[in-house]
Amino acid sequence: MTASIIDGKAIAAEIDARARHTAEALARISGRKPGLAVVLIGDDPASDVYVRNKGRRAEAAAMRSIEIRKPAATTEAEVIAIVQRLNADPSVDGILVQMPLPGHIDSGKVIAAIDPDKDVDGLTPVSAGRLLLGQSGLRPCTPAGCVILAERALGKLDGKSVVVVGRSILVGKPAALLFLEKNCTVTIAHSKTRDLPALCRTADILVAAVGRPNMIGGDWIRPGACVLDVGINRIPAPEKGEGGTRLVGDVDFDAAKDVAGSITPVPGGVGPMTIALLLRNTVQAMARREGVDIPVAAA
Amino acid sequence: MTASIIDGKAIAAEIDARARHTAEALARISGRKPGLAVVLIGDDPASDVYVRNKGRRAEAAAMRSIEIRKPAATTEAEVIAIVQRLNADPSVDGILVQMPLPGHIDSGKVIAAIDPDKDVDGLTPVSAGRLLLGQSGLRPCTPAGCVILAERALGKLDGKSVVVVGRSILVGKPAALLFLEKNCTVTIAHSKTRDLPALCRTADILVAAVGRPNMIGGDWIRPGACVLDVGINRIPAPEKGEGGTRLVGDVDFDAAKDVAGSITPVPGGVGPMTIALLLRNTVQAMARREGVDIPVAAA
Repeated sequence: MTASIIDGKAIAAEIDARARHTAEALARISGRKPGLAVVLIGDDPASDVYVRNKGRRAEAAAMRSIEIRKPAATTEAEVIAIVQRLNADPSVDGILVQMPLPGHIDSGKVIAAIDPDKDVDGLTPVSAGRLLLGQSGLRPCTPAGCVILAERALGKLDGKSVVVVGRSILVGKPAALLFLEKNCTVTIAHSKTRDLPALCRTADILVAAVGRPNMIGGDWIRPGACVLDVGINRIPAPEKGEGGTRLVGDVDFDAAKDVAGSITPVPGGVGPMTIALLLRNTVQAMARREGVDIPVAAA
Repeated sequence: MTASIIDGKAIAAEIDARARHTAEALARISGRKPGLAVVLIGDDPASDVYVRNKGRRAEAAAMRSIEIRKPAATTEAEVIAIVQRLNADPSVDGILVQMPLPGHIDSGKVIAAIDPDKDVDGLTPVSAGRLLLGQSGLRPCTPAGCVILAERALGKLDGKSVVVVGRSILVGKPAALLFLEKNCTVTIAHSKTRDLPALCRTADILVAAVGRPNMIGGDWIRPGACVLDVGINRIPAPEKGEGGTRLVGDVDFDAAKDVAGSITPVPGGVGPMTIALLLRNTVQAMARREGVDIPVAAA
């Protein structure tokens, strides 16, 4: 069997287009564009690329992108003051503080300062609590993207068995709760799990979110399973010349694609979904703040 | 094999005794007892019994019990005002609003009004978020009690496979996260799970939290497993005369005890742990509020 390749880039583009459509409708109703503020402290080159991508895609989706860049020496109190100003600014619907923050800043304190109704990354304690309690709220982007990709590949997810490998607060744990909301039977596995390969082979949907290149082999995968690879690992690629590198996931793609029913590539699978869901969260946050009722599916 | 019976009553009494010890130490340091406020709206007879039990055990553990009883006609705004007064009262360390509230009151709004640092039931969005994010905070009592019973039965839990049947916000979902914190591999199952008996048979620790009398049969249990029965179901017991009833769990105890390695009875298993953990949460809340460092194990 050769797996069908899940085209995350194309699906993300569809979500971006729908977010743009919703953003334009909201602008007609309220007279202003949805506003997404991204705060970047310091000059990490990778963060710089991420922040510019977010801004570019927000503007392409008819939103207003606000970039706030401050030097690495900015104090924790100053960062929190920036967040509070954005909380109070009625033209800002979404606030994202780019991680990682410089070491002298407690990122937990900064995140907790974000208004949960503008928390488009879904990382504040209140957003996490709403997710756990099944209340409406803004969900973390990458795991929400995983659920959409699984639905595209499999249709209705009721009763599917999901194994999530990795228990991070960014991906593993929220992904487990989001698949649970879809009536899946969900197992959370991690480094202490016994016989992880055998457990993975029980999964209809396997979510790999560990950060270890090519860890999950073809013989870990149930024939026909849907494999979602969240890992983005840069490894040496001597074939590209001296110092060359390339990106691989947590799944050994070449081996897995002969066993799985569907699989996300790296790059181009889960990755592009993260910003798409960020944009969707931003229009949903604006709709909620403006009291406009937009069905999730339409946003 | 005949399972060892996990004596929840005795273990709860030990935790009560330690909570009393800590409460006395805190009283010596701060000059006041830990204060636990319980709010009861209406005159549901079962709730009345629960609230009196909580008050009695709090006082036996050297705490101050504050009972606030209001008629069923009390408005939502009045209940929230009571909660806010208790939030502001420095002599109150723990606040518990007895559920269920009368139908005209939105219990979500009332719970969200509780100061998370006094939320000894662990039910506010912030407490739930702290649990999901792995931050320190007050944990829901019944699932925290389940983890303690499993540790008493099995010792270290690392790598054990846990199946939680039921995904309620009171028990199932928080229990899954608490066992995950103990490095267990955790599966959350529910009514949509396919072949639930076979899944249950994979569990080293089986947590039943469904609310269906005797649903889980002996052949659902892996030989030697630890079975924690959270269900408390009242069923007819004609042997007790006309109208007689008795309490049973979600597990068919008589069948299960021949297969399991250890099992909680109903009543007398998980049930008594809930108030014990409530008392432990109350002393922990006071210690935190007073800036006193008390190790969890000692509380």
